[in-house]
Amino acid sequence: MNTPRLLITLGDVAGIGPEIVAKAWPALRSEGVAPIVVGDPFWMEYALKLIGSPLRVEPLKQITTWDFDASIVPCLIGSDQNLRSMTPGHVTAEGGRAAYDFLCTAIDLTMARQADGIVTAPLHKEGLRAAGLKYPGHTEILAERTGTKSFAMLLWGDGLAVAHVTLHMALRDVFQHLTPTTVLDKIRLLDGILPRLLERRPRIGVAALNPHASDGGLFGDEEKTIIAPAVEMAIAEGIEASGPWPSDTLFVRAHQGEFDGIVAMYHDQGHIAMKLRSGKRAVNISAGLPIVRTSVAHGTAYDIAGRGIAEEGSLIAAVRVAAQLVRNQG
Amino acid sequence: MNTPRLLITLGDVAGIGPEIVAKAWPALRSEGVAPIVVGDPFWMEYALKLIGSPLRVEPLKQITTWDFDASIVPCLIGSDQNLRSMTPGHVTAEGGRAAYDFLCTAIDLTMARQADGIVTAPLHKEGLRAAGLKYPGHTEILAERTGTKSFAMLLWGDGLAVAHVTLHMALRDVFQHLTPTTVLDKIRLLDGILPRLLERRPRIGVAALNPHASDGGLFGDEEKTIIAPAVEMAIAEGIEASGPWPSDTLFVRAHQGEFDGIVAMYHDQGHIAMKLRSGKRAVNISAGLPIVRTSVAHGTAYDIAGRGIAEEGSLIAAVRVAAQLVRNQG
Repeated sequence: MNTPRLLITLGDVAGIGPEIVAKAWPALRSEGVAPIVVGDPFWMEYALKLIGSPLRVEPLKQITTWDFDASIVPCLIGSDQNLRSMTPGHVTAEGGRAAYDFLCTAIDLTMARQADGIVTAPLHKEGLRAAGLKYPGHTEILAERTGTKSFAMLLWGDGLAVAHVTLHMALRDVFQHLTPTTVLDKIRLLDGILPRLLERRPRIGVAALNPHASDGGLFGDEEKTIIAPAVEMAIAEGIEASGPWPSDTLFVRAHQGEFDGIVAMYHDQGHIAMKLRSGKRAVNISAGLPIVRTSVAHGTAYDIAGRGIAEEGSLIAAVRVAAQLVRNQG
Repeated sequence: MNTPRLLITLGDVAGIGPEIVAKAWPALRSEGVAPIVVGDPFWMEYALKLIGSPLRVEPLKQITTWDFDASIVPCLIGSDQNLRSMTPGHVTAEGGRAAYDFLCTAIDLTMARQADGIVTAPLHKEGLRAAGLKYPGHTEILAERTGTKSFAMLLWGDGLAVAHVTLHMALRDVFQHLTPTTVLDKIRLLDGILPRLLERRPRIGVAALNPHASDGGLFGDEEKTIIAPAVEMAIAEGIEASGPWPSDTLFVRAHQGEFDGIVAMYHDQGHIAMKLRSGKRAVNISAGLPIVRTSVAHGTAYDIAGRGIAEEGSLIAAVRVAAQLVRNQG
């Protein structure tokens, strides 16, 4: 198998993206991948100096080789925005637009098979908005630009993946988005991608919505009317799924090894457990896309950007997972 | 300080209550407490035999002393129900009624200062219902019988307590129960009881309801309209409270030692984190009652009752916490 060729997007350069890429670079090389940054050479250079790295940036106008000396950080110029006047920790329209451009450049190259996958550093929603771009985050841009209808952002860490049926919405709005179809869709997406990480069939546990899984209907009925039918349909398709399980004990059981994937009904249900058990080892994976894409599981951390103290662990983990997905794609 | 005199109620005898009391007994003695079981001598005897214990039961019609030989398990007859024909793992009206009687006996003795506190083994909601008793669990019986209006069931483990603003209800019904007053009430209850466990003032973190604490109002407004006002009122009362914090990172920060108490908005928000981090070390504490009461944090476990394999760790922890609350009451 060839070395996975991975594009690492810098995200919002006013965030911690450039510095975590600078800190992670030596480790990325030892993961057996060929990485190229898609971003802004000025900010990549800035980050290397910030952390006192001896590496130097090689700006690229296009990709003609993936073979670079270990002392070089190749950086494809991914946007024509002028970012020189930006300051770490501050939202700008230029930074938001550039983060979008970096991602689109990486998507187009990967769709054209000139790269094998994308690993993204964080962007800032406010930056996107300042640039007039109405996306809540990476995933929706990736879905739109690759023409994908059914997709999910998975949180992956320590051998467990969580797919969320609903994500960035008020808890009050969750109910209207839960249907047997939306639950089944996430079960299928987990079942589709997990074999590439586990190299076997996954065991999927589906969370209940209500406490105690409604205790036989005492506290709500979504278990009976929505979740159980979705689990039954999944089983009928040959998927090893079970549930709905009370979510407080489900994550304990998964942590003890009983499940490989969990379908959570809402953001905090999955995130409370995953942040507590996997913390900075957690990685985001886009499931359902025609290309490989992983991401750090943290944000731009504007409050500490430009100080060189951001931790690179999640980026290294994201690169490792992307490489595994590339190696195991059908 | 005198030895804390604790009443241990057997709960539903068809559950694991009797056997965890039997298994825990030698350890309880070494916690420096004087324990007396409130239950059914026949089932206490049964449980000791089940686990091959050399201890023997001494049935009591009333409590005249707390000083018993280490080879004795004193058991106050706490109900006039005939429980001989019950079978482990099966709901009966007799078992439900007896569990209620045991608890009422313990409450009355403790309110009369004939005991210092109560530690409860689990009862079964279906058993209560079969007996025509319309309580969802222990806490409501305790509140009613002690004439308490403002109370909370806290989950406590590894130095962290969680109070829930709402508990056993459908997630859909949570919204109508959240008001600045209900949130403030739980902050106060935590602030009231935690100094007795910590021996200093507690730092209380209040969880948001919506993901990312609504991200500045993008996903819901309960943070702004309900939770923030409650936190402000608590601070104005001199309580060291902060929030609303995004719940996924709040529990990580608490786990790292930043908070002693968390106010959760709904059952699973608190339980997912506490079961994952403290598991069988978790204990329930009733806050706001005029008497000390703690409980195991698990249920009757009918599926394994009568096999002698149930773990006694949560009961021992509950006794330890009750003893501490007794020693530190005003």
